[in-house]
Amino acid sequence: MEFKISKELITQLEELIRSGDDHQLETLLNDLHHADIAEILDELDFDDATYIFKVLDSEKTAEILLEMEDDVRENILKRLSPKEIAEELDELETNDAADIIAELSKDRKEEVISELQDVEHAKDIVDLLRYNENTAGGIMHKELVKVNENWSVLTCVKEMRIQAENISRVHSIYVVDDEDRLKGRLSLKDLLITSTRQQINDIYIRKLNSVKVDTEDVEVARIMQKYDLEAIPVVDELGRLVGRITIDDIVDVIRDEAEKDYQLAAGITQDVEASDSVLELTKARLPWLLIGFFIELVASVVLDGNEKAFDQYKTLIIFVPLLSATAGNIGVQASAIVVQGLANGTLKEFSRKYLSKELSVAMISGTIISVLLLIYHSLVFQQYLVGFAISISMIVVILFAGTLGTMVPLFLHKNKIDPAIATGPFITTSNDVFGIILYFTIAKLILGL
Amino acid sequence: MEFKISKELITQLEELIRSGDDHQLETLLNDLHHADIAEILDELDFDDATYIFKVLDSEKTAEILLEMEDDVRENILKRLSPKEIAEELDELETNDAADIIAELSKDRKEEVISELQDVEHAKDIVDLLRYNENTAGGIMHKELVKVNENWSVLTCVKEMRIQAENISRVHSIYVVDDEDRLKGRLSLKDLLITSTRQQINDIYIRKLNSVKVDTEDVEVARIMQKYDLEAIPVVDELGRLVGRITIDDIVDVIRDEAEKDYQLAAGITQDVEASDSVLELTKARLPWLLIGFFIELVASVVLDGNEKAFDQYKTLIIFVPLLSATAGNIGVQASAIVVQGLANGTLKEFSRKYLSKELSVAMISGTIISVLLLIYHSLVFQQYLVGFAISISMIVVILFAGTLGTMVPLFLHKNKIDPAIATGPFITTSNDVFGIILYFTIAKLILGL
Repeated sequence: MEFKISKELITQLEELIRSGDDHQLETLLNDLHHADIAEILDELDFDDATYIFKVLDSEKTAEILLEMEDDVRENILKRLSPKEIAEELDELETNDAADIIAELSKDRKEEVISELQDVEHAKDIVDLLRYNENTAGGIMHKELVKVNENWSVLTCVKEMRIQAENISRVHSIYVVDDEDRLKGRLSLKDLLITSTRQQINDIYIRKLNSVKVDTEDVEVARIMQKYDLEAIPVVDELGRLVGRITIDDIVDVIRDEAEKDYQLAAGITQDVEASDSVLELTKARLPWLLIGFFIELVASVVLDGNEKAFDQYKTLIIFVPLLSATAGNIGVQASAIVVQGLANGTLKEFSRKYLSKELSVAMISGTIISVLLLIYHSLVFQQYLVGFAISISMIVVILFAGTLGTMVPLFLHKNKIDPAIATGPFITTSNDVFGIILYFTIAKLILGL
Repeated sequence: MEFKISKELITQLEELIRSGDDHQLETLLNDLHHADIAEILDELDFDDATYIFKVLDSEKTAEILLEMEDDVRENILKRLSPKEIAEELDELETNDAADIIAELSKDRKEEVISELQDVEHAKDIVDLLRYNENTAGGIMHKELVKVNENWSVLTCVKEMRIQAENISRVHSIYVVDDEDRLKGRLSLKDLLITSTRQQINDIYIRKLNSVKVDTEDVEVARIMQKYDLEAIPVVDELGRLVGRITIDDIVDVIRDEAEKDYQLAAGITQDVEASDSVLELTKARLPWLLIGFFIELVASVVLDGNEKAFDQYKTLIIFVPLLSATAGNIGVQASAIVVQGLANGTLKEFSRKYLSKELSVAMISGTIISVLLLIYHSLVFQQYLVGFAISISMIVVILFAGTLGTMVPLFLHKNKIDPAIATGPFITTSNDVFGIILYFTIAKLILGL
């Protein structure tokens, strides 16, 4: 059922472009979904993609524009005139159009806006450009159906038919007063089963969730998920209805939020992608590497200071990588579980009960690993005291790493810092260094050095 | 506007429960949204939560059940009779009811099903229990509006009003033939603006996406996102319409999928949570720790074998933690970017262009770090040749880690293994060991050992 892109199709399209057979190109592509055409254009070179783009109808290409990869879109837009871009934007919903305009350079932006044909639409788009992209205002669209509380159902249905023309999904009908202030909602279903003689005032639902234009997008996502909403109206400071956010606008916010933790854990920043330039990639990654570098310099000082100890007991030094890797793994595991617990609400703040659970896990794991280490050390090196010292240090370091792994994200969270940082390179390399210090301290104590 | 839970409210509720003032409890809670009441019950002890649960109307409690934390729900269900549970399930949508039944023990499951009052509903629920939870069948619900292609719009509207009674969101109206095979769809909006004398056959849209009952849930999510769908019908092997999946069912799939990468990176398994028992947590974490342990034992063997080298040049050994941390960070960064690229489609397979980009990033970062290391080493230890040897090894190890970090996820992806494993403990500790081997090999070569 689903479309699958093929090498043959790509070659066929390239040949049609060479021969300038626009009619055949149109026939071939017109039946495809715009998301599929976007996939095809991603595979072509930019000039060919632009060629096809100009052949197809702007109603179709506008939607294609939204689905393309960023760099392909950027390059196609470069090859279009401001008037051609404006024609595309006239076909789009306000928030999609605003997102594309926001990607343009300042000069082009103004040129494109001045070429927009539909004045109302243009006003809405310009209005949306004012908002910060991480707020409700930045992700809302202007398309919605609203009716006045003083209308009858009959007037309402007539008005709705006009308004709904430009809207792909109605969801709710919002009810406003004469000053455009949001008062409540009507469901399309209710309207279907109500007599046309009724007054809106008598049938609308007065209770409804809304968000302000400056509410953060992640907060909007949280509210919509909690109350299981498919759309939420957005109001300005005076309570006037200015836009609407639908669940598909929020899906990206939810995914980005979940991916952010992964990126923090991996020491890359959110804005970086495989398709970015070497310079951008380096700028995103080098800072974390340098932080790690300076922290690990401390480890070299610690090792340097313990030279006498490992000169005497060689095995002390050769298990350092094992020790720091194990401590690192335990710490990251502990932090990740806390980060998740904070995100899904099963964990809200520090609790002694939870910490003691983590310490039990660390104790069990630590004991198993230390016993294995003791056995290995005894078999291979036959130095029982130093093996014992290393194993005991190992348990202590594991308990320490588990505690730190639990406490750091809780501490960060309490101080309004994203707790997922605790699973990233900064904290994990710090853990390394603390682990090594602790390890030598305890081992030397036991060995009487 | 939004409800905020308070300590006062909790205390007040606890007092009302003690004094058995059910009426006051109802008044206090009836105005709240079920998601808010769920939050309150999460804070109470299980007996109090059950008490409130029994006081409130089952129409409300059924929805509350869905929003509660897993362990609270489990404990409340334990305190309810099969008949009481069945009363709750009668109020729920089929897929939500099936999800709750799936959590019960086998005996309770059958008891509860036999107590269900609405026979049609019960049949639908039992039907849903057959499907694997990670397939379209496992996440779909039975509630949908369908009309026969041979009806008139008038019959259709009448039928729809009946069917829509039990459905919170209509989205699309599906059109089936006499054998219940899915033929197409009608939009609610179209229906609003069509004359009642028209035939469904003349106005319905024949093209529509659907998925099979056994399509994987992540694939359903991908299709719905790609084609920007708010609902998708599910058909069985014979093309008969058996259910529907809406975007809110998919939001969880999308979030789980994004979170899974983070969990793999952190070396914990997907099924584990902060609220799980010590035993479950240990079972999820210990395997990764042991894998890391055995891999790092190799590092100890390598260090042991290079004893002569670092006896002669002490600084060789003290920079091992720095070296392995840097290599680890570079490797994880490289892998994470590839994993993301594969997930969002900007990267599809191995490309020389992308690898050379990664190598450029590694080369720039490696050079900067190595120069810093050389300066530090020269200033502190005044041994220029060994400083040079360490720095050169560092660059090589960084280039190697960048390459491995890029190639491993691509290789895993090609072999249908989740590439995010490459950012987890298994690969990162392996990188450590390879890095240490390479480091000593090159340093010894330069130093003529």
